[in-house]
Amino acid sequence: MAIIRIAQAQINTTVGDFSGNLKKIIGIIEQARNQDTDIVLFPELSICGYPPEDLLLKRGFLQDNLKAIEDLKQHARDIIVIVGYADSSDSNVYNAAAIMQNQRLVESYHKVELPNYGVFDEKRYFQEGSGFFVFELNQVIFAMSICEDIWIEGGVVEQSAQNSDVDIILNISASPFHAGKVETRQKVVEHFARKTDATVCFNNLVGGQDELVFDGGSFIMTPQGSLISRAKRFREEFLITDVHIDREKDSREKAKINNPKIIFVSLDSYKRYHKNEFPGTVAGEYGRLEEIYHGLVLGTKDYVRKNGFKKVVIGLSGGIDSALTAAIAVGALGPENVVGVTMPSQYTSSETLSDAELLARNLGVQSYAVPIHGIYKAYLDSIKDVLDTKEHGITHENIQARVRGNILMALSNRFGWMVLTTGNKSETAVGYCTLYGDMAGGFAAIKDIPKTMVFELSEYINELWGSEVIPKSVIKRPPSAELRPDQKDEDTLPPYSILDGILEAYVEEDKSPDEIINSGFDPEIVRDIVRKVDLNEYKRRQAPPGVKITHKAFGRDRRFPITNRYLKNAIP
Amino acid sequence: MAIIRIAQAQINTTVGDFSGNLKKIIGIIEQARNQDTDIVLFPELSICGYPPEDLLLKRGFLQDNLKAIEDLKQHARDIIVIVGYADSSDSNVYNAAAIMQNQRLVESYHKVELPNYGVFDEKRYFQEGSGFFVFELNQVIFAMSICEDIWIEGGVVEQSAQNSDVDIILNISASPFHAGKVETRQKVVEHFARKTDATVCFNNLVGGQDELVFDGGSFIMTPQGSLISRAKRFREEFLITDVHIDREKDSREKAKINNPKIIFVSLDSYKRYHKNEFPGTVAGEYGRLEEIYHGLVLGTKDYVRKNGFKKVVIGLSGGIDSALTAAIAVGALGPENVVGVTMPSQYTSSETLSDAELLARNLGVQSYAVPIHGIYKAYLDSIKDVLDTKEHGITHENIQARVRGNILMALSNRFGWMVLTTGNKSETAVGYCTLYGDMAGGFAAIKDIPKTMVFELSEYINELWGSEVIPKSVIKRPPSAELRPDQKDEDTLPPYSILDGILEAYVEEDKSPDEIINSGFDPEIVRDIVRKVDLNEYKRRQAPPGVKITHKAFGRDRRFPITNRYLKNAIP
Repeated sequence: MAIIRIAQAQINTTVGDFSGNLKKIIGIIEQARNQDTDIVLFPELSICGYPPEDLLLKRGFLQDNLKAIEDLKQHARDIIVIVGYADSSDSNVYNAAAIMQNQRLVESYHKVELPNYGVFDEKRYFQEGSGFFVFELNQVIFAMSICEDIWIEGGVVEQSAQNSDVDIILNISASPFHAGKVETRQKVVEHFARKTDATVCFNNLVGGQDELVFDGGSFIMTPQGSLISRAKRFREEFLITDVHIDREKDSREKAKINNPKIIFVSLDSYKRYHKNEFPGTVAGEYGRLEEIYHGLVLGTKDYVRKNGFKKVVIGLSGGIDSALTAAIAVGALGPENVVGVTMPSQYTSSETLSDAELLARNLGVQSYAVPIHGIYKAYLDSIKDVLDTKEHGITHENIQARVRGNILMALSNRFGWMVLTTGNKSETAVGYCTLYGDMAGGFAAIKDIPKTMVFELSEYINELWGSEVIPKSVIKRPPSAELRPDQKDEDTLPPYSILDGILEAYVEEDKSPDEIINSGFDPEIVRDIVRKVDLNEYKRRQAPPGVKITHKAFGRDRRFPITNRYLKNAIP
Repeated sequence: MAIIRIAQAQINTTVGDFSGNLKKIIGIIEQARNQDTDIVLFPELSICGYPPEDLLLKRGFLQDNLKAIEDLKQHARDIIVIVGYADSSDSNVYNAAAIMQNQRLVESYHKVELPNYGVFDEKRYFQEGSGFFVFELNQVIFAMSICEDIWIEGGVVEQSAQNSDVDIILNISASPFHAGKVETRQKVVEHFARKTDATVCFNNLVGGQDELVFDGGSFIMTPQGSLISRAKRFREEFLITDVHIDREKDSREKAKINNPKIIFVSLDSYKRYHKNEFPGTVAGEYGRLEEIYHGLVLGTKDYVRKNGFKKVVIGLSGGIDSALTAAIAVGALGPENVVGVTMPSQYTSSETLSDAELLARNLGVQSYAVPIHGIYKAYLDSIKDVLDTKEHGITHENIQARVRGNILMALSNRFGWMVLTTGNKSETAVGYCTLYGDMAGGFAAIKDIPKTMVFELSEYINELWGSEVIPKSVIKRPPSAELRPDQKDEDTLPPYSILDGILEAYVEEDKSPDEIINSGFDPEIVRDIVRKVDLNEYKRRQAPPGVKITHKAFGRDRRFPITNRYLKNAIP
């Protein structure tokens, strides 16, 4: 029986931060060496961060990847280091894993299966690898793979692994989060482990990058599908596990490896006399709202911090969306880094105003009040002749919303606070929001949270924090934009439970209006909602980024034309 | 000698408008039949419009493509019809050409080379074709190809064409415009024609779709590289050409076609007794500024019209950017559909204000004046305590710009006019513009025009229109945002000739700061500009779409992360 000690470095890298990422990687190599680790694994593209997007089209950026690997080689002493980078050492660019030992680059494995769907554009940047890399250490056979490589049923890596009697498949990933993804991921890996009869060591990235959150949750799974170890999610982790490989049941035929498509290398074994043991620890699972909450917090924190901001400012309306956004901001950055601003108008009720103030007190955040009557009146005075109407309509509502946007942006400009917008997925979908008004800001923390989930998350946060931080009256009051007298969201929109059902079918599942109607929704409502979703693509195109939480988020995940007559009624 | 009469339908389709596109296609088939045409060609994906983006992920949308082809078959009588569509008749989706005759679908050719760079994402949607389609008509051998198929040196289609003695290669395209592209295109086709010793018939789409303009310019080129015919650009064209194929020099060996990868079909010949001849007409070439002007006009017109708008509104500052934008809008929509608004502040000089009024008169557009002092003062009154500063800085400048944005959007909401923003590429690049202020609007007509070209285009328009529509004083005055006393752009930015040189190298050519410095620019200026470009990605992400004119435009052409520490000094 052989024991291999594997260290999984589930780190939070930053795109383009070569020196910062490298420093972190080097520190962890030291740590791993001090624990007599045989192999230390880092995530996919951890040298340059993931996804670097069109930075990969810059020759300088590619050269910096190679230079970083050159520097890192020196640190591969008494340990095998495996790290993701962009390899451009021939005329192509590959999504690669560097396998380093004895201060040498032993091999660069090139990812074979390049995802080019959903949020992924890897075929825009990378050439697919053609080989399969296998190495032996202590008579144990390892195979390399990168993320998608083990997701493809019957793919090259699966076939090669089956043909070469591999004991352990190493996988370095940058697998982004959405609610429920972790179950899919474990099922996929279990299927792969069983089919290849190999132990799979899955090492994932953690951290936020623009719209994406990588949730970590790295693990090691036996060929029978049991977990030997699993890291916590939504945080950096350094996990050491002793993997026991039973040699007796294995009558390895090295001949199998004599396949011209398989690169085979024997690495130098380490004689280890382990003082201590690392039998593996398996972190617990997360509940549905728990993982979503942590995803939002990490995504918000990393966007704000990695972009060099310290504080955020949020317009507090007294409604539930801004309350939830503020609570997430406090969870991400601490109350001392969150500023609330109430901006009452003549249509703001005293209840909502006092709820906004109560919320700020509950959260312990600083708050300001900037009434907007005077400014709104000045607008009306200046443009009444041009507007030439006495009717209070959408024009007047939007002016007020944009006055608030301007005030928040003025505070942002003056004090360097990032504005967080407060729109949820339901209103973003149907355009129940004002461009340059409540949509004005740097980050849309809850843009992928349907309104029905906004309520659930608010209750969850009150439970988590053990007190009614988000006042019950905020959760109970019928939603209103308060831009005209006695306005309620349901004057314009169907009840949110119905709206969210239609939106899930149309946006996330790409169902046609007829299919949605056939599943039991009112035809007139379905057509109206679908029309609104299509018509408001132009607004979403100008929305700030926000955390992807669902299977399909607006943004890089769903790329729709603005000019689009597909559903004829989409054009006024 | 055989004569084949080919009709090229260079049409303007709309994405998702199946009934509109189909109606147009059917009308043209009739026209072509009436002229005894053998073959009529339509552009790539003309059934559904190009590019349909994620509409291709909707099953209903794919079914509607098949249904449209089913309907269209009935019209393929006494003529061969070739039209682009999305084929999902097996479990994959293909970018396809339907070849129809005798009311039957003879074959569906599947595009082999799928572009997945620049503005293209075809690997996100399509499976690549594996075959090559050849047909015989009147003893002349034709091969099918779609756009990129003939751009790839040594690609499958080139090899197959060489191996099967093809006389005429038909190519249906949706090849987007950028300045100078037409020369590249003709060179590529000439190279291909010579290598395959075949006549190439290139049929291109025309029209605007979001950020893209398709410029048409369809043509037929002999194997020696001479043009038999060429359509005008930036407009719909219906071009009929008699192509003469000299049979005597051709000792065709049909055997060559016995290649399992080549699908070969003999089509029914038409006995034609042509009353008239179509020897081919070759439209003239366009000058550099001429093609850019037409690209801007068509892109603006189609965005406004295809999105159901009639009129546009533009803030006229008296500066050259808004003057050029207004002139383009007039060129696109006519003066009766353009509204100008001057919004003077205390910093607006009487010269710029009177220039704005003069411009409106010259263009013959309606104009309004809405002074902003009163509104601006109301802002200062309301937030002076919170802002807590006496200094007039960027905060105050932005408040004014956002007041103007709010006024324009109020007019848009009230009257249904689309706001055109006026930012050029140089200021968009370095963020010399206000988010939700001058960046607020539906379409950014000149977003891809560098400032130095703004001057050239303004002079060009005055020449084209034969009078000083854009007043000389507007062209001559040093650019200023007029947001504080005596402000000039060059207080903050280097001279535009230098700025544009650096931007071209950094943005369009992806050069590193060191490479740019080595080509002769001042190191400090280069580093400052590069830092500004990177830092302002967040603003551009919220900018409206606009016409792509250069080799690489901001938008879908250049996909950069916002969170990006690649150039360390990019973080404040």
